[in-house]
Amino acid sequence: MDRLAKCPANYVPLTPLTFIKRASMVYSDRTSVIHAGVSFTWLQTYDRCCRLAYSLRSLGVVKNDVVSVLAPNIPALYEMHFAVPMAGAVLNAINTRLDAKNIATILHHSEAKVFFIDYEYVPLASEALRMLMAFLEDTSSTEYAMPLVIVIDDIDKPTGVRLGSLEYEHLIQHGNPRYLGEDVEDEWDSIALNYTSGTTSEPKGVVYSHRGAFLSTMSLIQGWEMTTEAVYLWSLPMFHCNGWTFTWGVAARGGTNVCIRNTTAKEMYKSIYQHKVTHMCCAPIVFNIILEAKPHERYEIATKVNILTGGAPPPAPLLEKMEDLGFHITHAYGLTEATGPALVCEWQTNWNQLPKDRQARLKARQGVGILTLADVDVKNKDTMESVPRNGVTMGEIVLRGSSIMKGYLKDEKETAKAFQNGWFLTGDVGVIYPDGYVEIKDRSKDVIISGGENISSVELESILFKHPNILEAAVVAMPHPRWGETPCAFVVLRRSGTTTETDIMAYCRKKMSKFMVPKKVEFVKELPKTGTGKVLKVELRKIAKTLQISENTSTNNKRSDQKESNFNEDKVLVMSRL
Amino acid sequence: MDRLAKCPANYVPLTPLTFIKRASMVYSDRTSVIHAGVSFTWLQTYDRCCRLAYSLRSLGVVKNDVVSVLAPNIPALYEMHFAVPMAGAVLNAINTRLDAKNIATILHHSEAKVFFIDYEYVPLASEALRMLMAFLEDTSSTEYAMPLVIVIDDIDKPTGVRLGSLEYEHLIQHGNPRYLGEDVEDEWDSIALNYTSGTTSEPKGVVYSHRGAFLSTMSLIQGWEMTTEAVYLWSLPMFHCNGWTFTWGVAARGGTNVCIRNTTAKEMYKSIYQHKVTHMCCAPIVFNIILEAKPHERYEIATKVNILTGGAPPPAPLLEKMEDLGFHITHAYGLTEATGPALVCEWQTNWNQLPKDRQARLKARQGVGILTLADVDVKNKDTMESVPRNGVTMGEIVLRGSSIMKGYLKDEKETAKAFQNGWFLTGDVGVIYPDGYVEIKDRSKDVIISGGENISSVELESILFKHPNILEAAVVAMPHPRWGETPCAFVVLRRSGTTTETDIMAYCRKKMSKFMVPKKVEFVKELPKTGTGKVLKVELRKIAKTLQISENTSTNNKRSDQKESNFNEDKVLVMSRL
Repeated sequence: MDRLAKCPANYVPLTPLTFIKRASMVYSDRTSVIHAGVSFTWLQTYDRCCRLAYSLRSLGVVKNDVVSVLAPNIPALYEMHFAVPMAGAVLNAINTRLDAKNIATILHHSEAKVFFIDYEYVPLASEALRMLMAFLEDTSSTEYAMPLVIVIDDIDKPTGVRLGSLEYEHLIQHGNPRYLGEDVEDEWDSIALNYTSGTTSEPKGVVYSHRGAFLSTMSLIQGWEMTTEAVYLWSLPMFHCNGWTFTWGVAARGGTNVCIRNTTAKEMYKSIYQHKVTHMCCAPIVFNIILEAKPHERYEIATKVNILTGGAPPPAPLLEKMEDLGFHITHAYGLTEATGPALVCEWQTNWNQLPKDRQARLKARQGVGILTLADVDVKNKDTMESVPRNGVTMGEIVLRGSSIMKGYLKDEKETAKAFQNGWFLTGDVGVIYPDGYVEIKDRSKDVIISGGENISSVELESILFKHPNILEAAVVAMPHPRWGETPCAFVVLRRSGTTTETDIMAYCRKKMSKFMVPKKVEFVKELPKTGTGKVLKVELRKIAKTLQISENTSTNNKRSDQKESNFNEDKVLVMSRL
Repeated sequence: MDRLAKCPANYVPLTPLTFIKRASMVYSDRTSVIHAGVSFTWLQTYDRCCRLAYSLRSLGVVKNDVVSVLAPNIPALYEMHFAVPMAGAVLNAINTRLDAKNIATILHHSEAKVFFIDYEYVPLASEALRMLMAFLEDTSSTEYAMPLVIVIDDIDKPTGVRLGSLEYEHLIQHGNPRYLGEDVEDEWDSIALNYTSGTTSEPKGVVYSHRGAFLSTMSLIQGWEMTTEAVYLWSLPMFHCNGWTFTWGVAARGGTNVCIRNTTAKEMYKSIYQHKVTHMCCAPIVFNIILEAKPHERYEIATKVNILTGGAPPPAPLLEKMEDLGFHITHAYGLTEATGPALVCEWQTNWNQLPKDRQARLKARQGVGILTLADVDVKNKDTMESVPRNGVTMGEIVLRGSSIMKGYLKDEKETAKAFQNGWFLTGDVGVIYPDGYVEIKDRSKDVIISGGENISSVELESILFKHPNILEAAVVAMPHPRWGETPCAFVVLRRSGTTTETDIMAYCRKKMSKFMVPKKVEFVKELPKTGTGKVLKVELRKIAKTLQISENTSTNNKRSDQKESNFNEDKVLVMSRL
């Protein structure tokens, strides 16, 4: 039994690259990518990937080199998900919402050898490159040189914007379509590098293996029941965990990628209508964009659109409104370190018989582990014992399985902290129900401990969200002389709303246990956010420390008036924990 | 990039055992298995598997021990697919249609440590055990002792049949439900051993790894788009490639296994009706059983039933009749060595617009590689070059990927023959179309596929050779209206011999499994041969096509009459090349 050895016929490294090769044969004539006036078939996309991979090799890219890219959801970024690993290199898709300093930090930390820049981002990237150069000069670094810069011009309507001499389509044209890519020698080899903004100060570089990417992709198209010939709308940025692995997943299913540059209401409605979109991923904030679209931005939604969403659980009325419009929502939870979603709220048919609000509560849970995840658990942080499955006792969500990251690039300390006792510690706090479904209660750091009681800021926020005049809310701990900590709510009101602190506190008292009611409500025009759209609670905590507890005050009318004037919804950021 | 090491949190061996553990949590209350008057939930099935695994360990079973079982599609055989590997052992499900001699050979070759026997098969198994004991005494073998025998009584209506003191339910009762099974240390560890009748005289033991089984399962539930909560009817024997991996697959999807002892028309119709079956696998021969059912055997088919079928492509009219009844058929191709189906005829939506007969022709092709197969090709046997993708040029179908077997147990020579130049050689001849779909043109020449069972002509010939009056014999396939193919024997008698067709058939019935007996014996003066003395089977096949099956010549009218009145569908063989 033991004498049967591995050989090239029966042990082939797992890699998402098999998906594109297979797609080029099996789905050769099907549409692979649509973007504005341009579209490709799978045979063409594969051909372009082979050419690009060849050109990268010609430019000196070798195994384990990092190829960075700063681009929105355009065909080039999609192609690079295959072409870069075909060249043996590691794809680093940078969040386009970061500032120049962060981008420079990432280029430096990753030692990017090549830097692709979408034409729209040339000014931002130039600034980042200037900062990087200044930094290299300051430190007289000899280890790392500046990256080779390649601009990606608009494929539909070329603009002529350049930064240096190289352009993406030029590389495609001069590539060799017969180049089949480097062999993946070991499935543990790296395929992608994604920086998490995290809530800590320095971004961390999360490295995925070919194996992890392959398995996560397989699990997600399965867990979401993404059928063959799916039409996938890129409302989720590809730079988020490689589009939650659906960059590779759409190729696996022979689907069609609908790439849009901006996730505006009009672009989304139009794409859904024109291309009969069947699947899309997004943060719950996108629901607001869809629901609040103006009449002239709307197109008919004739087919069912499946949405996979992550982050804060959307409130029941929002879910219902979306479902009424023709969207079918599946809730998920994940994080960059887990190659995207790790839990999916798999629907159980017998739930269909339950009342709508009960269904919404079940649907809002983050769910069960995807198929390739070996195990999920919720553990007491101190004892590392599993918490009882009662839907009440909170603990840290821990994961293990081959879809978990290899580790943090050049950061042994953080890697060691993340992996403990055979588990990956998510840092998120949740409960587990008797049926095995997990629900997130909070980020560890975001738990408010008031008079010895744990208060989940997420829970509090979800109640605030249901207030008709509240557009956004974030709750953090503020110091309290008696209780240690108490919740402080930062609230953005709707344009139309006029509400006082007293109103909100009264509303809260009706909806939650008394100890949970925020002792301070602060009205703001917008919430401070990271480039990925995560609320910067660390900033809010700083502000909260300076505030007075307003248990008996009522001076808030003025503030809420201010707010009404010029709330800019365009700035609503599209992301979640993922 | 290279310094990030594997650890227990991010590198967990792939194994189908994660499916049952996950099912016990996520689908705890859903029905896992239904059989006659008995049914279990996933929590119960997992509990029973833990208990059985514990009992096996208690009985001395250790890593890599072979646990053989001779049983139809009953819950016990299903449970053993998890419990045996949980105990670290290797499951060997034996074809119940084999004769005692073949079973004895398998027990001996596999060095089975435990032998589970369904109560109905106690007489057959006893004979096999007697033969094994006689053989061991003859050879004074000290290396291998007789296996421990455990009878599986009927779980619904216990019969009291025993062979020795041990009974299956007894082991379950005395097991420990808290035993979680042995850790899979390496995903390359063996999980199952399946004997193929193959083309040579000796059966070959095909060994699967945990990795291969896991990946093949993932691919097949995907390629067939088997959704969650599927209700799966066990019309395909679990002893065929572990039920084409759907033993594990149904657990992965939280589906329900409907186990039936016999694949009679009535049992199938009744199960489909009562349990709202959504999926089943079978050889095309089962279509006949379904279509020829008597009115009193039929139940209404209200829901769409997806059928995955293998082997000879069903003719277009048969397909249409099945579809009219409510079945949706997907064609596949595989073999034991590929852990079940390796190609699936994935449907393309644009085919829906084609005329029915064109659709049937497309559907009859064996299809494209499943997702975890790294590559499929058709190669010229001599040059090993890929044949052109024109649907005309024939070559050998070759496969590579992690779902291919580890190799043949204790048979280095055959293993080496199967793996050449980085490919697994299927021995089957096919063409590849411009769209990448493969169609089989000819089975590996010496295999006769009768009612889905492989019959080795070499094996049959070697038995014929032993007849005192036979000088030479060659066996080829001849077409058969019911079985697809049936063996036709060309015999050259010794000068002295006078022997009739009936004599030879009677002789065969004593020497081999019933389904192997030639339905036609043709006496010839000499066999057509090549210059080097090899029998020209291609010529014999041409002749065989023109011959009448002798079932209708002598004593066979009665048989076919019988068939009409009480056709014994119990004996209908449900298999394919798979």
